[in-house]
Amino acid sequence: METEGNKMKKVLFATTALIATASVAAADVRLSGYGRFGLDYNDANDSNINGVSDTTITSRLRLQFDMSAETDMGVAFDARFRAQAESRDNNPGGAVFNGARFGVVWEGLRVNVGNIIGAVENMPGTYLETRTAGIGIDGAGFFSHVGNVNNEFFNWDAYSSAGVGVNGVEALYTYEGFVGHISYSDRNETIAANNNGGFDRAAIMLTYSWNDFGVAAAYQNSGAMWEDKTLVSGWYDGGNWGARIAYADNDGISKWGLYGNIDIGAASNLVLFVTSEDSVDQADVNAGRGDNRVASTSASCAAGTTCTDTEGETYGINWSYDLGGGASFETGYRRASNDNDTFQAGVYFSF
Amino acid sequence: METEGNKMKKVLFATTALIATASVAAADVRLSGYGRFGLDYNDANDSNINGVSDTTITSRLRLQFDMSAETDMGVAFDARFRAQAESRDNNPGGAVFNGARFGVVWEGLRVNVGNIIGAVENMPGTYLETRTAGIGIDGAGFFSHVGNVNNEFFNWDAYSSAGVGVNGVEALYTYEGFVGHISYSDRNETIAANNNGGFDRAAIMLTYSWNDFGVAAAYQNSGAMWEDKTLVSGWYDGGNWGARIAYADNDGISKWGLYGNIDIGAASNLVLFVTSEDSVDQADVNAGRGDNRVASTSASCAAGTTCTDTEGETYGINWSYDLGGGASFETGYRRASNDNDTFQAGVYFSF
Amino acid sequence: METEGNKMKKVLFATTALIATASVAAADVRLSGYGRFGLDYNDANDSNINGVSDTTITSRLRLQFDMSAETDMGVAFDARFRAQAESRDNNPGGAVFNGARFGVVWEGLRVNVGNIIGAVENMPGTYLETRTAGIGIDGAGFFSHVGNVNNEFFNWDAYSSAGVGVNGVEALYTYEGFVGHISYSDRNETIAANNNGGFDRAAIMLTYSWNDFGVAAAYQNSGAMWEDKTLVSGWYDGGNWGARIAYADNDGISKWGLYGNIDIGAASNLVLFVTSEDSVDQADVNAGRGDNRVASTSASCAAGTTCTDTEGETYGINWSYDLGGGASFETGYRRASNDNDTFQAGVYFSF
Repeated sequence: METEGNKMKKVLFATTALIATASVAAADVRLSGYGRFGLDYNDANDSNINGVSDTTITSRLRLQFDMSAETDMGVAFDARFRAQAESRDNNPGGAVFNGARFGVVWEGLRVNVGNIIGAVENMPGTYLETRTAGIGIDGAGFFSHVGNVNNEFFNWDAYSSAGVGVNGVEALYTYEGFVGHISYSDRNETIAANNNGGFDRAAIMLTYSWNDFGVAAAYQNSGAMWEDKTLVSGWYDGGNWGARIAYADNDGISKWGLYGNIDIGAASNLVLFVTSEDSVDQADVNAGRGDNRVASTSASCAAGTTCTDTEGETYGINWSYDLGGGASFETGYRRASNDNDTFQAGVYFSF
Repeated sequence: METEGNKMKKVLFATTALIATASVAAADVRLSGYGRFGLDYNDANDSNINGVSDTTITSRLRLQFDMSAETDMGVAFDARFRAQAESRDNNPGGAVFNGARFGVVWEGLRVNVGNIIGAVENMPGTYLETRTAGIGIDGAGFFSHVGNVNNEFFNWDAYSSAGVGVNGVEALYTYEGFVGHISYSDRNETIAANNNGGFDRAAIMLTYSWNDFGVAAAYQNSGAMWEDKTLVSGWYDGGNWGARIAYADNDGISKWGLYGNIDIGAASNLVLFVTSEDSVDQADVNAGRGDNRVASTSASCAAGTTCTDTEGETYGINWSYDLGGGASFETGYRRASNDNDTFQAGVYFSF
Repeated sequence: METEGNKMKKVLFATTALIATASVAAADVRLSGYGRFGLDYNDANDSNINGVSDTTITSRLRLQFDMSAETDMGVAFDARFRAQAESRDNNPGGAVFNGARFGVVWEGLRVNVGNIIGAVENMPGTYLETRTAGIGIDGAGFFSHVGNVNNEFFNWDAYSSAGVGVNGVEALYTYEGFVGHISYSDRNETIAANNNGGFDRAAIMLTYSWNDFGVAAAYQNSGAMWEDKTLVSGWYDGGNWGARIAYADNDGISKWGLYGNIDIGAASNLVLFVTSEDSVDQADVNAGRGDNRVASTSASCAAGTTCTDTEGETYGINWSYDLGGGASFETGYRRASNDNDTFQAGVYFSF
C-alpha cells in the first residue's frame, strides 16, 4: 500500500540543475521508510502441527527511494522503488527491491506506468485508520478490507512492495476535494494458453470529500474469475474521532464493514471494526462457478493450516500510542471469519 | 554502458574527513541515475505466436551508487554498483544490484578491478549519439554498433548493468586529447573442462581527438570463438552537427557503419545511421568454423522469434526533444538486417 | 562482523522532525561502507585440480544503510541492512542485501531483534586488531579466532552480512568499562523433524576494561552438536603496541591464541598471532560423537579441496600502511593448521 509511504516526510537531498539551460529545474533522490517489529501470536501456527511456534517475531524494514526531475515547463517526472526486508512466522528474508513505478505529473494530473498504485487499491475508506492500514504490526491479513473475500485476497491491481507489480498504466486526476483514478494492466499470454493464460484488469475509482465527510466508489473488471468487483465507502472524520462504512460486491459475494476510531488522551488512538462476509451466491454455485472458499490451493490457505471458509464476521481492535519522533507503540487483536485469532504488539518508526 | 552515467551530474553528499590526520581528504557516497519509459512496437512479438503483444511497455529505473575516498597523497579510490529495475516485452523485473567495480585514480591514470568498463566497450565512435546510446527508449538491440554481428552481440568485455561482469582488470591513461585503455579478464575453468571451460579476453583501445575531430581503434583477442575483433572509427563533431564512420572486422565478418546527427531548432536533435554487415568469410566456413548466424541458440535468437541471419543493412533514425531539467522525449525507428522492425517513443529523465 | 562498520564515521543526512509535536526528535538515513580489493594467493586452489587459479582477485564492496528515529523521551529506534558485492576465488557476485536488524536504545541499554550481533560474536579479544578483523584482504578464513575449530567455523549466532541472520533477540548493557550481552535465537522446526529440525542458541558475554587492560568471557549453549562453547580473553593495549591472549573450549576441543600488534613509524602497524587447536577429546569419540574434522561435508571442506584436520598450529602476520583519507594498504600471510597457505595484498578504503 501507498498509504504509509505518503505520510512520511521525505529526506530531501539538495541538488543542482542538470543542464545549463534548465535554470529553475531540479532533480533529486530522496530516501525514506520505516521499521516495525514486534511479537505475533497466531493460533494458526503450532510447533507440533506446522513446525512454527504460535508466537513469533514479525518485522519489516522498508527503505524507499524516490527519484524525480522537473522540466522547464513544470512537468515533473518521478520514479520509485523500495528495498524491503521482512520476517513473518519466524522466517526472515534479506531485503529485496520491488518493481519500479514511473510517473508524469502536471498540475492535478498524474500518469503512472509499471508497478502502479491501482484504482481499487487507492480507494479511500477501505483500509483501517492505523499505521499498518490493518491491525497490529503487520496488518494481520487485512480481513478488515471489504474487497478481501472468499480466500481470494488482494485480487485487484495494487502496488507491490515485495514483487514486481502488474506493469500497468493509470491516470489520476485531482481537483479540490475530487479524485478520479483509472488503471489498466495486461498480463502476457503464453503461447500454449494463448487467449487464456493472460488476463487484463481495468478499474476506476472516484472519490469526493467535503468538510469532514467523504465518499468513494470503485469498480474493477477482470478477465480472471472472482475479480469483478464494486466497492463503495463513506466516512466522517471529526479529528478526535471518526466513523466509516464500506461495502463491496466481490463477483457476487457481498461484504460489509463498520469502522470507528477515537483519540484517547493526548497521544493514543483506538480503532475498532467489524466486517461481515456473505456466502457465495447460489446462482454462482448453480452456474458451476464453484466455491473457492475451501479450496486448499487458494492464496489464504497456507500449507500446514486448516483452510476454512472466510464467510462470516471478523472483528478487531487496534491501540496506538504515539512516542514522538515518528515512533509509536502499536498493538492489536483480531478474530477473523475463518476462526483465526491473532494478537500483536510492537513498535513502528519512520525515517 | 558507461556513457549515460558519466554524463550525469552527481548528487554530492558532503562528508567530513574519516581520520584525524587526513585534513584534506574526503570520502563520500553519491547517488544518481535515470528513469526511462515508453512504448515499444516490435514486429518480432505477436500475441498469437509468442504470447507477447507487438506493442509493450519498455522501461528502466537505474539508481547508481558511487563511493569514493582520497588519500593524503591525492590518490583516489572509488567503487560503483547500480540497482536497476527493467521491463522489456511486458515482462517486468524487480531492481537488482550488479557486480562492483573498484578503481584507483592518480592524475591521468586509472586502474579498475571487477566489473570493468572494457577497452572495446569504451571505444569512442561506436555507440550512437543518443541518450540510450542506441535507438529509441531501450537501444533497440544496438544493431548500430559495428561489433555486433552474426547473432553474437556484445561478445566483448563490458560493464554489466544487470549482471556481475567479467571480474577483470584494466588500465586507462588520459593525456590531453589522448586516451589509452587496456583490459583483461579470465573466466574460471571448471575441472571437467579443465583447459576448455574457461577463456580469457585481452583488449586494447587507443583514441585521439583534436579540435572537432577524433579517431579511435580497438582490438580484442579472446580464447572463445568469434571474439577476436578489430574496430576503427573516425568522427567530426561541429557542435550543431556531426558525422561519423566506423568499421569492424569481427573474426572475419566485416561491418561498416555511417552515422550523422544534427540539431533542429533550439531543443531537438536528429540521429541517423546505416550499417552493413558482410557474410561469413568462405574460408571460415571451409575451415569448419561454421556459420553462427542461423543458430537458434545464439544470444539474439530469442525463443518464439524467427531467427534469421544478421547479414545485410540496418538503418535507423532517432529524434530527441529536450524538455529541460534533465528530461527529454525520445523516439526512434530502426529496421534491422534480420528484417526486424521496432518503433519506440517515450521519456527519459536523469536525477 | 560489526567491528568494521562501527569504526566508520557515518555520512549524516540532516532531516527535519517527522511529526509537528516532536520538536526535538529527528529521523535519518545514513550511508557508509567500505571497499577492499586485492590479490589472493591460496594454495588450496589449482587450475588443474579445482579449475581455480591459485592467485585470484578478492574483493568486497559494502554499502551500509543505518536508519533511525528518536522519541520525545530520548528512546532511540534504529535499523540496519547492507548491500554487499563480493568476489572470492574469481567468482564475483552482484550486491545483495542482508537481513535487517532492529534496535531500541535507552541510555546504556540496547535491545536488538532480527539479524542480531550475537553475544559470542561481540566478545572483545577474539578478532584480530586489523581492518578485516582477520589476515590480509578478506580475513583469510579467520583461523585466528579461538572459536573456529574442527572444520566447524562460525557455529555461533553472529550478524550475517550476506545472509538473513538468525532472527534472534539480544540485550546489551554498557556501564563505564563494563559491557554485558545476552542473545537468543530459535530456528523454526519443520513438521517432519518436529522436535529435531529446529534448534536454539543462548549465549552470554561479559567484558570489563580499565586503563589499558581488559578481560572478556562468553558462553554459548546450543541445541546443535559441537556448538556449546566457552571463551575467555585478556589484553593490554598501550597505544603503540598491544598483546592479547584468548582461549576457548569448543564442546571439548580446546584452542589457544596469542596475539601481538605494534606500530612501526608514523603510518604502519604489524599484527602477529599463533593459535593452537587440540584434538577432539577421546571421551567424545568414545561416546560416538564422532570426529567432524575430516568430514567432507563440513563448512570448511569446500568441494575440490583436500579436506584436512584443523588440529594444530596456525600462525599469521599482517602489515597495514595507512594512506590517509580512510584508505590503507593491507598485506598478510597465514599458514593454517590444515596446511593451507594464503598470502594477500591490496587496498581498503572507507566512505
